Amino acid sequence: MLNRLSAEFFGTFWLVLGGCGSAVLAAGLPDVGIGYLGVALAFGLTVLTMAYAVGGISGGHFNPAVSLGLAIAGRFDVKQLIPYWIAQVIGAIAAAAVLYLVASGKAGFAAGGFASNGYDTLSPGGYGLTAVLVAEVVLTAFFLIIILGATSASVPAGFAPIPIGLGLTLIHLVSIPVSNTSVNPARSTGVALFAETAALGQLWLFWVAPLIGAAIGAVIWKSLLGKD
Amino acid sequence: MLNRLSAEFFGTFWLVLGGCGSAVLAAGLPDVGIGYLGVALAFGLTVLTMAYAVGGISGGHFNPAVSLGLAIAGRFDVKQLIPYWIAQVIGAIAAAAVLYLVASGKAGFAAGGFASNGYDTLSPGGYGLTAVLVAEVVLTAFFLIIILGATSASVPAGFAPIPIGLGLTLIHLVSIPVSNTSVNPARSTGVALFAETAALGQLWLFWVAPLIGAAIGAVIWKSLLGKD
Amino acid sequence: MLNRLSAEFFGTFWLVLGGCGSAVLAAGLPDVGIGYLGVALAFGLTVLTMAYAVGGISGGHFNPAVSLGLAIAGRFDVKQLIPYWIAQVIGAIAAAAVLYLVASGKAGFAAGGFASNGYDTLSPGGYGLTAVLVAEVVLTAFFLIIILGATSASVPAGFAPIPIGLGLTLIHLVSIPVSNTSVNPARSTGVALFAETAALGQLWLFWVAPLIGAAIGAVIWKSLLGKD
Amino acid sequence: MLNRLSAEFFGTFWLVLGGCGSAVLAAGLPDVGIGYLGVALAFGLTVLTMAYAVGGISGGHFNPAVSLGLAIAGRFDVKQLIPYWIAQVIGAIAAAAVLYLVASGKAGFAAGGFASNGYDTLSPGGYGLTAVLVAEVVLTAFFLIIILGATSASVPAGFAPIPIGLGLTLIHLVSIPVSNTSVNPARSTGVALFAETAALGQLWLFWVAPLIGAAIGAVIWKSLLGKD
Repeated sequence: MLNRLSAEFFGTFWLVLGGCGSAVLAAGLPDVGIGYLGVALAFGLTVLTMAYAVGGISGGHFNPAVSLGLAIAGRFDVKQLIPYWIAQVIGAIAAAAVLYLVASGKAGFAAGGFASNGYDTLSPGGYGLTAVLVAEVVLTAFFLIIILGATSASVPAGFAPIPIGLGLTLIHLVSIPVSNTSVNPARSTGVALFAETAALGQLWLFWVAPLIGAAIGAVIWKSLLGKD
Repeated sequence: MLNRLSAEFFGTFWLVLGGCGSAVLAAGLPDVGIGYLGVALAFGLTVLTMAYAVGGISGGHFNPAVSLGLAIAGRFDVKQLIPYWIAQVIGAIAAAAVLYLVASGKAGFAAGGFASNGYDTLSPGGYGLTAVLVAEVVLTAFFLIIILGATSASVPAGFAPIPIGLGLTLIHLVSIPVSNTSVNPARSTGVALFAETAALGQLWLFWVAPLIGAAIGAVIWKSLLGKD
Repeated sequence: MLNRLSAEFFGTFWLVLGGCGSAVLAAGLPDVGIGYLGVALAFGLTVLTMAYAVGGISGGHFNPAVSLGLAIAGRFDVKQLIPYWIAQVIGAIAAAAVLYLVASGKAGFAAGGFASNGYDTLSPGGYGLTAVLVAEVVLTAFFLIIILGATSASVPAGFAPIPIGLGLTLIHLVSIPVSNTSVNPARSTGVALFAETAALGQLWLFWVAPLIGAAIGAVIWKSLLGKD
Repeated sequence: MLNRLSAEFFGTFWLVLGGCGSAVLAAGLPDVGIGYLGVALAFGLTVLTMAYAVGGISGGHFNPAVSLGLAIAGRFDVKQLIPYWIAQVIGAIAAAAVLYLVASGKAGFAAGGFASNGYDTLSPGGYGLTAVLVAEVVLTAFFLIIILGATSASVPAGFAPIPIGLGLTLIHLVSIPVSNTSVNPARSTGVALFAETAALGQLWLFWVAPLIGAAIGAVIWKSLLGKD
């Protein structure tokens, strides 16, 4: 069990350090900055890389919504849900702390939103609560469909991390302007603690919406798509 | 059969939500926008991800032209063509509606072209009917050659979604400026219904050209390339 | 043999239409253009996609220098070299013609360099003959090392098109500013015929350098690296 | 042994020529430059391509820190460590020389930083010593975790170069603004010799930090994650 929780801790650490790190450190630089495209790629590659590295140990969730969806779909023992959530959230917070340490090593640093998620004035594009809620629910639902399908018996072993990781890239390509893209309550929690904005006050939404979306995705898979 | 049509519905939904969604929400933002490169990547990743997730259920067409080409090549039962087309078009329209709901959650939203396809003044670069027709026919033909080749017996199981998805990315890298890239009548139909422009009046071309192209691709494969 | 030459024709057609097409149509647009990064990705994806689609038929060279290097390395029958070269060059010219037709469908079109290769004033960054020669020789040599290594017995079946295609992307990421990147005499020939510049007068270099580089790569592989 | 050292020489050559080459030649061009995103992709693809090409010969380290980490984890014979390091450093220097030759083929060329690594005024974003040290240690540690995990028995053969190469891309997406990204002492050494800045005086840090990070990553893997 220590191996499994360590894998979730380091995997979620990497997701926040790599994804939020690229957003905080490299996205908005003039001329050579990586933009939302680079951030989207970074988030996806955190999952692709760690799913290969430690997916065989813990399943490679790195996301409380994914753990919930897999439990609902019967692919994950519900008794491990809370330990997994705790390892994921601690990993995310630890990564946000390390990122803060690195980012503050530049003269004139200000944390600002620190890659946190939000709606209304805290949405990158000023999107309202309904739009953010719909986007997060629908995108998390599809994320679970991709995960459940790519890890089903019909796909040869070894490929799953590619569609799952790049699926997270795709989700970011669509929704960074809307909500700064969560679909992952641990990721949202980690950086909200360091944001100078009111992100913490909106954090509830980035637990509620991804968890609902993951449940919907799992139910769609079981009832309409999957044969397992 | 419900499983198969559900897979086509959700797959085409994802193609429109992810591909057109990235175009509407994230392409043209100043400084950090994802540009045509990000949109091209998004379209390809919709197919890569859902081909892994549900390709084993329905074959993973998500595109009426692909279903036609596969039927002509003898890889798909022609009796299922119309049900597939209906599921694909409904999926595309449903996704466009969800995208409209999200996109309109921003003050000052205007649908504009809403990622629809077109020629002349509705072409992103002002390309005329002939150029758009040639581009759509030729690119769809190669899309079918890639699909038929990558799913032939000479390619080990599991790889096909990679070249097929990234092939769609490549097609967009070339032709977004020309036609905004269709090669998929369902995708064109879904968003044309929400466009504020005259896109619906040009929709015929984005059924005719991809279907002709798919037929040509299937014939080239069968007569000159494939051994199956 | 018809199957094999058809595969080389369509593969090289796709390389020029996709790679040079993305450069001519989509690279330099303001704000949303795909830039050299998008062009580099496009060239690589042409090879990745067609290597999966028709690699099992012809070997998937799509490039006279690759055919030569494989022949020197003992992987390709030298008697087929000239037929392959002819199919590749014809495919490249046909693709350039289709690209010209599409590109000219926009008011005010001028062919300009038409994605051709060159040195001095015809180099995108103004690089001289020596720099272009060195870059083309060294990069083609490594392209052959990648091809020979990725298709050797030590790599499980099915993966080779990924490093080979993305290797071509990498080569473009480095050298588009230098020579507009050839490493492929057929690609250079196809578009040089349509360029309004003096590209045709420099075409000799983009036969000589890639062929020398491919030979060097094959010799390095056989003498220092490979065990086959 | 000659085969193995040749593989490390050419692999590290390719890493510097491709990664640093894209940075020097193509990153900062106006409008069409590839930016940090393109450079990050280039570095990752050097490893992805050569790991497929020659990974079966030498293991595909191309990096003294990786060799050290693998030795600590018990995956690499420590007696080969120094020969590997020598081959890697010579390969990196040779590549930097070739890159210098190509880059100087443009009127008005100045080497400047020549893609070298640094802190304070030699950091692209002006990050201080602590931030650079933390970033290099943590990112190299995760690089080793990815390498050890992706090459463990739980991952089917053939996939490892994908997460390892794209993991290096991810590392660059995060840390180019901080340190210009090393995680590889050979890469840092090769270009520092040609830089017009004081990069050589800071080179010690880009040996110390990656080696410490690699050791930490190996220990984390052995103690908390891996079962081998």
